[in-house]
Amino acid sequence: MSKLNVVSKKTNRIARASISPLDLEKGQNLGLVEANYFNFASPPDEFRLESGERLGPITVAYETYGTLNDQRSNAILIVHALTGDAHAAGFHRGEEKPGWWDNMIGPGKAFDTDRYFIICSNVLGGCKGTTGPSSVNPGTGKRYGLDFPTITISDMVNIQNHLIDHLNIEQLLSVAGGSMGGMQAVEWLTAYPKRLKSSIVIASASKHSPQQIALNEVGRQAIMADPHWKGGHYYGGQAPDKGLSVARMIGHITYMSEISMAEKFGRRPKENGKPQKFSSDFEVEEYLHNRGNHFVKRFDANSYLYITKAIDSFDASRGKELYEVFREIEAKVLVLAFKSDWLYPASQSREIVKACKLAGVDTTYCEIDSTYGHDAFLLEVEEETHLIKHFLHKVSLENGMVGGYGMTDYAI
Amino acid sequence: MSKLNVVSKKTNRIARASISPLDLEKGQNLGLVEANYFNFASPPDEFRLESGERLGPITVAYETYGTLNDQRSNAILIVHALTGDAHAAGFHRGEEKPGWWDNMIGPGKAFDTDRYFIICSNVLGGCKGTTGPSSVNPGTGKRYGLDFPTITISDMVNIQNHLIDHLNIEQLLSVAGGSMGGMQAVEWLTAYPKRLKSSIVIASASKHSPQQIALNEVGRQAIMADPHWKGGHYYGGQAPDKGLSVARMIGHITYMSEISMAEKFGRRPKENGKPQKFSSDFEVEEYLHNRGNHFVKRFDANSYLYITKAIDSFDASRGKELYEVFREIEAKVLVLAFKSDWLYPASQSREIVKACKLAGVDTTYCEIDSTYGHDAFLLEVEEETHLIKHFLHKVSLENGMVGGYGMTDYAI
Repeated sequence: MSKLNVVSKKTNRIARASISPLDLEKGQNLGLVEANYFNFASPPDEFRLESGERLGPITVAYETYGTLNDQRSNAILIVHALTGDAHAAGFHRGEEKPGWWDNMIGPGKAFDTDRYFIICSNVLGGCKGTTGPSSVNPGTGKRYGLDFPTITISDMVNIQNHLIDHLNIEQLLSVAGGSMGGMQAVEWLTAYPKRLKSSIVIASASKHSPQQIALNEVGRQAIMADPHWKGGHYYGGQAPDKGLSVARMIGHITYMSEISMAEKFGRRPKENGKPQKFSSDFEVEEYLHNRGNHFVKRFDANSYLYITKAIDSFDASRGKELYEVFREIEAKVLVLAFKSDWLYPASQSREIVKACKLAGVDTTYCEIDSTYGHDAFLLEVEEETHLIKHFLHKVSLENGMVGGYGMTDYAI
Repeated sequence: MSKLNVVSKKTNRIARASISPLDLEKGQNLGLVEANYFNFASPPDEFRLESGERLGPITVAYETYGTLNDQRSNAILIVHALTGDAHAAGFHRGEEKPGWWDNMIGPGKAFDTDRYFIICSNVLGGCKGTTGPSSVNPGTGKRYGLDFPTITISDMVNIQNHLIDHLNIEQLLSVAGGSMGGMQAVEWLTAYPKRLKSSIVIASASKHSPQQIALNEVGRQAIMADPHWKGGHYYGGQAPDKGLSVARMIGHITYMSEISMAEKFGRRPKENGKPQKFSSDFEVEEYLHNRGNHFVKRFDANSYLYITKAIDSFDASRGKELYEVFREIEAKVLVLAFKSDWLYPASQSREIVKACKLAGVDTTYCEIDSTYGHDAFLLEVEEETHLIKHFLHKVSLENGMVGGYGMTDYAI
């Protein structure tokens, strides 16, 4: 348990404090939050995609937590993973589950809303408020389906850049995300090197290996094999739920580790009466079915196709040596990986770190000893909180934020 | 390269020889072979399954290579993996591809047909000549489909035991197999401890982990999600090819290693014109599609369901400590595992070895340094040949086979 010297806001005295589970419990919830929508790129000023195609108008769903300081210098952009959305923390009215990274974002938490202004937007191609294949194509009055253009991680980041313009923020204190979010955090570093002070890349990679592409491709094949998919034009009818559910089940296997599965399920038989032939006999099978069935209620199959393709085509090196591209980077970088993550093995994080070091980028790397597999980036809250709090504090200090909004109570 | 002292058949002089790729090349092919069929369990003497259900009549497809010696003491049973069959070596008339383990079975090869009499049969529940869900149910005159009873690894082995009776062989010199074949090789050790002199268990496990069950379950779900599956009653109509193809693609990802995929494909784009949306962009995707499409032509979806369930339900320990069950074993055991095999990690082989040692079983273990992943059991021919030749030779010697058929030219 590492100790921090904390300057109390009220007394200005230095006190000893430790980040412990107790502190995490103290971190309060944000309470009710709601989504905002930003519209832009209306014809004739459509947004130009990496493919060269044009798209517009575009709506971006986003949420913000905390308060932007007077200097507008405490903004952190959270970038989400494959099936995430803008609702990263707090509660939507009437809902019992908080946002997907609620244990990391809030007062006193890793992304401390007493200190920072947190922004999270749904990615381009998504299905949670930002324009995607399930949106209505203004050219036809019908949903895009597969008429939606191919998108890339770079497109997602360029859209976020427009959002930051819209919020009148010149420079981000940080961009942070895990998995596909980590790819966006890497892309931000090279696409807008002057627009961010730091980047936090968690459980991610600079490009997909053939094995990672293969796993995504099988998911896509499962969706497209579902006759309800109908070439992507299923809106208004039955959705390809079975195919999407299989894709999600494959995903869940890759998100867990062999150990975490063994600990969670063992070979315990599912509790039921006499099982039907090829019904689930083991708890792990039942778990996967439930995850799959739950998922299809909240996610669009075409978005799954578009976003996984964006992930697979991402290559931060753009055909060069990665360190050459990273020479542009001006920000400080924190890279986190998890030992049991076999979907995004730590070796891929170390590749990013190595290229950063070769390029002279100020980089910190930590490999967290977790048994949770890839899921660890959502579950290893205590370790991540500890590392991210320190990192953000250091970035804040170096950028003259001591004395700024909410930073007076922190000193090393 | 390890050296063997070889006693020439003709001169009786001891010569030095090494097993090298050159020697493997020298190992000749078996030429034309054909399947045999053994029928039994006709009503009212149906075969009693582990589930208690009765099944009959049963046909078993099998092939044999080499010659049974006068003492009937040189027989080795080869047991196949999930989608294997009785055609392990040599060529069927008119076919260009030899049997699935042809590089291991033949004159001078690991399973040397100059010395041993090799038997390989298609498993119960299969679709290559042995009775399975695609066979005609004599009770209805229609294909079984899901009326076929649930089967287990134990049932497969019990059927093989009947075949060995039929061949009038009292005791097998060895039972050998990889993957699901390894499970049968383990089951033989405890089910018929007096009927085999040795067992060779390759890249296998004494039971499936939840992760292994999960991977099989997603494959099953993909098949059952295909509307052409129709509750298993698709015979005579369109088969659930898309679902089965997705299941096979998942399989192929698990059969390769991250390294072997990277070496084989890298991120090379597939060679084609302007790709269609969500067509394959990378070679690895094209490879998986081809594997999937090829597979559905040779395999029955219901057999895939039944056999994967048999694998998942297998537990050699039968709820006890594994070493307690292994106390019955009288045979000598060789266990082989491959370092990059993440589907059947070496730790599972070591569990078998540990239990054997605790039970006082004469056991040899070798972890082969391969990058091929689970596929290594079909590809690491040189290493396997070396280890298996020595092991079988030792077993032969200990069982008085020197001087027996084809064994005069071998001494250590």
